[in-house]
Amino acid sequence: MMEPEVITSLQNPRVKQLVKLRDRRPRDQAQQFLVEGYRQIRRALNRGFAPVELYHCPDWYPGDQGNEAQLLADAAAAGARVWQLSAPAFAKVAYRERPDGLLAVLPQWRRELDDLTLSANPFLLVVEAIEKPGNLGTILRSADAAGVDGLIVCDPVTDLFNPNVVRASTGVLFAVPVVIAESGAVRAWLRQKGVRSVATTPAAEGLHTDADLSGPLALVMGSEQYGLSDTWLAEADQTVRIPMAGQADSLNVAMATIITLFEAVRQRG
Amino acid sequence: MMEPEVITSLQNPRVKQLVKLRDRRPRDQAQQFLVEGYRQIRRALNRGFAPVELYHCPDWYPGDQGNEAQLLADAAAAGARVWQLSAPAFAKVAYRERPDGLLAVLPQWRRELDDLTLSANPFLLVVEAIEKPGNLGTILRSADAAGVDGLIVCDPVTDLFNPNVVRASTGVLFAVPVVIAESGAVRAWLRQKGVRSVATTPAAEGLHTDADLSGPLALVMGSEQYGLSDTWLAEADQTVRIPMAGQADSLNVAMATIITLFEAVRQRG
Repeated sequence: MMEPEVITSLQNPRVKQLVKLRDRRPRDQAQQFLVEGYRQIRRALNRGFAPVELYHCPDWYPGDQGNEAQLLADAAAAGARVWQLSAPAFAKVAYRERPDGLLAVLPQWRRELDDLTLSANPFLLVVEAIEKPGNLGTILRSADAAGVDGLIVCDPVTDLFNPNVVRASTGVLFAVPVVIAESGAVRAWLRQKGVRSVATTPAAEGLHTDADLSGPLALVMGSEQYGLSDTWLAEADQTVRIPMAGQADSLNVAMATIITLFEAVRQRG
Repeated sequence: MMEPEVITSLQNPRVKQLVKLRDRRPRDQAQQFLVEGYRQIRRALNRGFAPVELYHCPDWYPGDQGNEAQLLADAAAAGARVWQLSAPAFAKVAYRERPDGLLAVLPQWRRELDDLTLSANPFLLVVEAIEKPGNLGTILRSADAAGVDGLIVCDPVTDLFNPNVVRASTGVLFAVPVVIAESGAVRAWLRQKGVRSVATTPAAEGLHTDADLSGPLALVMGSEQYGLSDTWLAEADQTVRIPMAGQADSLNVAMATIITLFEAVRQRG
């Protein structure tokens, strides 16, 4: 059956599948995920991540950029199938508050610990069981700004390809190498590589600024609700805390991660 | 006219006014604002901020706490008028995603620069024209965690009593002294008090970690979209930048604020 040039039906199977990809199970079944908006799709393309499908709707273009046509051409050249949607159809598939008429479907990927390329003085960020997509996205941005070799996500609760992680990461998902792994395997791998693990917990005695963060380093951060697991706390090479002047919950995990990462950046010169 | 013991009508004037208080103009006209949820209302009460009105709906209570009755009693003792709402009426006035059946109306306040109590070694945070309520809320939390003497908001775009600022601040709004003021007045006041202003901008030459942040200090941060105004950049005693390894926009203003604040905390011991 020929597919229409412009998809107008809200019952079109592709439209329905785009809506489904917001949820984890269909996303994992399809091994695909959504990337919405010009800037994010452009960043994916620039990093060599090619969409398999690209949906556009000129009615939703903000109108002041005019570089959508080039994006469509670049995506097509990279192998994407391109469809136009009617304004109502695009409204149905868009999940951003202010859609800009561009939505891509990309294949998921999976990296293993041994896929990480460690620099001469390894610098890694490890997070355990992060629950909120927005926090994982912010953590990705912090990891990018601090210049880590990679982000290791242990025992994830939210998945990396959640649309809100993708959005909150502002394209950093395509820049920072991310590995999903089980905590025990991560600890064994860090020991094998000679990388010191420094875990942040309010229960630690020493401050993060008094720890030596200048050598091969994996900073380890716990989950929003439960903090770090007992095993990480017991087996980390060192635990540190961030000094807190105000109410105990003023720093969330994303904020604590930024503080610790940039103290490491300072020490590493 | 007697008011009903339980407000059930969605057309009740109090219900309508609660919805209106989400918007700035009616909020400023009433000189009141909304505080939703047990934890935030408790924090307001504990800091001596008394609600003028408290609305509750047992149908929405999460059920595992059971301390709502005490909160109602404490609020009433502090002078609040207390009303019960029907489940549909509460659904109309709640703005949180998961309401817990408690919503308070508090009077707005206004502090002037001279209301700030400076410590022996003053430590202030100044932000200019912040646009996003979520960022202002996060900045409040960072300021609390870092233990500043006060937060000065210059030329605000979003107002302090926006429901999303209140929510994102997780009660810190009641803990950190905040002053709204015009930039020129703030600069004159800082000079008069002998407080050095250090402004963060990507255009600076020196790093924030190389600046002396140990003395009387006002850290100055710009807006999301435009950064710091030319006047602040020209008149700040020093400008600094945060080293960036990744894409230029990975650090937003809230993240940059945390990094700079905690470098100051480190230097100030």
